[in-house]
Amino acid sequence: MRATCTFQAVRPQTLGLIGLGAMGGSIARQVKQPGPGHGIRVVGWSPEPAERAIAAQEGALDDAPPRAIDVAQVADLLVLAAPPAANLTQLETLGPQLKRGAFITDVGSVKRGIVARAERLGLSDRFAGSHPLAGTHRYGFEASRPDLFRGAVVYVTPTPGGENAAFEISHFWQDVLEAEPVLIDAARHDAQLAATSHVPQVVASLLGDFLARHAPPGSSFGTGAADTTRLAASDPALWTEILLMNRDEILPALRELEESLGTVERALETGDAGALTAWLERAAHWRRRLG
Amino acid sequence: MRATCTFQAVRPQTLGLIGLGAMGGSIARQVKQPGPGHGIRVVGWSPEPAERAIAAQEGALDDAPPRAIDVAQVADLLVLAAPPAANLTQLETLGPQLKRGAFITDVGSVKRGIVARAERLGLSDRFAGSHPLAGTHRYGFEASRPDLFRGAVVYVTPTPGGENAAFEISHFWQDVLEAEPVLIDAARHDAQLAATSHVPQVVASLLGDFLARHAPPGSSFGTGAADTTRLAASDPALWTEILLMNRDEILPALRELEESLGTVERALETGDAGALTAWLERAAHWRRRLG
Repeated sequence: MRATCTFQAVRPQTLGLIGLGAMGGSIARQVKQPGPGHGIRVVGWSPEPAERAIAAQEGALDDAPPRAIDVAQVADLLVLAAPPAANLTQLETLGPQLKRGAFITDVGSVKRGIVARAERLGLSDRFAGSHPLAGTHRYGFEASRPDLFRGAVVYVTPTPGGENAAFEISHFWQDVLEAEPVLIDAARHDAQLAATSHVPQVVASLLGDFLARHAPPGSSFGTGAADTTRLAASDPALWTEILLMNRDEILPALRELEESLGTVERALETGDAGALTAWLERAAHWRRRLG
Repeated sequence: MRATCTFQAVRPQTLGLIGLGAMGGSIARQVKQPGPGHGIRVVGWSPEPAERAIAAQEGALDDAPPRAIDVAQVADLLVLAAPPAANLTQLETLGPQLKRGAFITDVGSVKRGIVARAERLGLSDRFAGSHPLAGTHRYGFEASRPDLFRGAVVYVTPTPGGENAAFEISHFWQDVLEAEPVLIDAARHDAQLAATSHVPQVVASLLGDFLARHAPPGSSFGTGAADTTRLAASDPALWTEILLMNRDEILPALRELEESLGTVERALETGDAGALTAWLERAAHWRRRLG
């Protein structure tokens, strides 16, 4: 089950960020804007020294030390904003370095793995997963924005027994970043996101790959093909991690798509207009309701 | 081969429209706007009396007679803007009713069938097919706009020996509607559009249908899923006709998609990150170049 959270604010004095790409960079920028983040010190680290330098230079960071551990040791709330596999490693490395009373979260798109890892590491009372539904197919600090999270749904996935950490982390998203935290079980999150985000990514890439190989040279593309493939421009390395981490949810969905493609093919082969219209109708009805 | 056309204008005095939906309605609206259509009389027909009435009332038509034949008999250029199957019937019925020297075209998305039909009807020297790359997933006169064609590519497909008609019709698109006509062989057009438009429609509907059946109730969708499925809202009856008319081009493409889905599934099953990244990379590279 899911529920929207409302809390009293307990603000971090120092926010730590591991990763300064589109997500981490946007958190830093928004906190340092005039607004509810006023007074919070933001300390961030990226494996790219150039990214650290530019984030500091643009005023998104108060400090950009050369080691991740220097961030972890001063943060009241540490946000892991690296790609999903790196977040797992950082959780392991930095978890034991946290200050007493500090909390830790991540912003990855798959939640069962990291929630289980936090539990195994004995971080249940300080960790909850986060997943802001504020993706962008662009990446790197240059893709960061000061308003990426405002009004965005952020899924927060507690560890078993970690409700307090989940509450604290939820109100950070709500009070400081003006997002809309939604508490959800990690398994339910991963099943839902497989359908609503991971499968759409595969479908957009499927079409992009097809067009890359089969569109006649010099073809003009309308807004239809451009919109349908927009997600295909997303970072392949990041999506390789996401798809592999959630493959047990994604694979049955892809087999379902294969079967559905088979239905369309049979309708075309036999000239079955009724079957074709029924198939198109179901999708049209759903999409028109989405608005 | 394709070539951009540049001509001297020979303007129709009376433009006839059969069909007043998003396409026919937009042609009417644009011609009656202040601009290059100045002085052209627009006469239109729709099987829906209410659509005729509203188009006339909104100033998109100078006359809206109750029968299609009344439009055909007065037009210097007759544009068939009904769904593809109805256009074939109208070509047969109205072709023999045209004034001496009048031209006729259609705006359907599949071109081999109607070009062959025009040839068989002895209309080679008055007909060329048109396909404005100015689709909208909305439909009906209420979806028409006075600027739908401005700057849009319009494919013009001649009959064998019908170059003169194709030239006349091309310069109507260019001079009156400020579009960019591109002459292209009907078979080449249908092969190209299968890839660039018809397969994207199937892919968007495939995902829409999947989400309609499998997204958990109450799921939030980001802009990714919304963009990838935007085309799924298109008119199912119209797309049933388009897909069936071009099925010999579309079917091999769908089988190709099935195979590609199989490749992703195998990479996920075996945890082959390299294969997955390569597949995502090819699509990302193509999509980033599209811009």
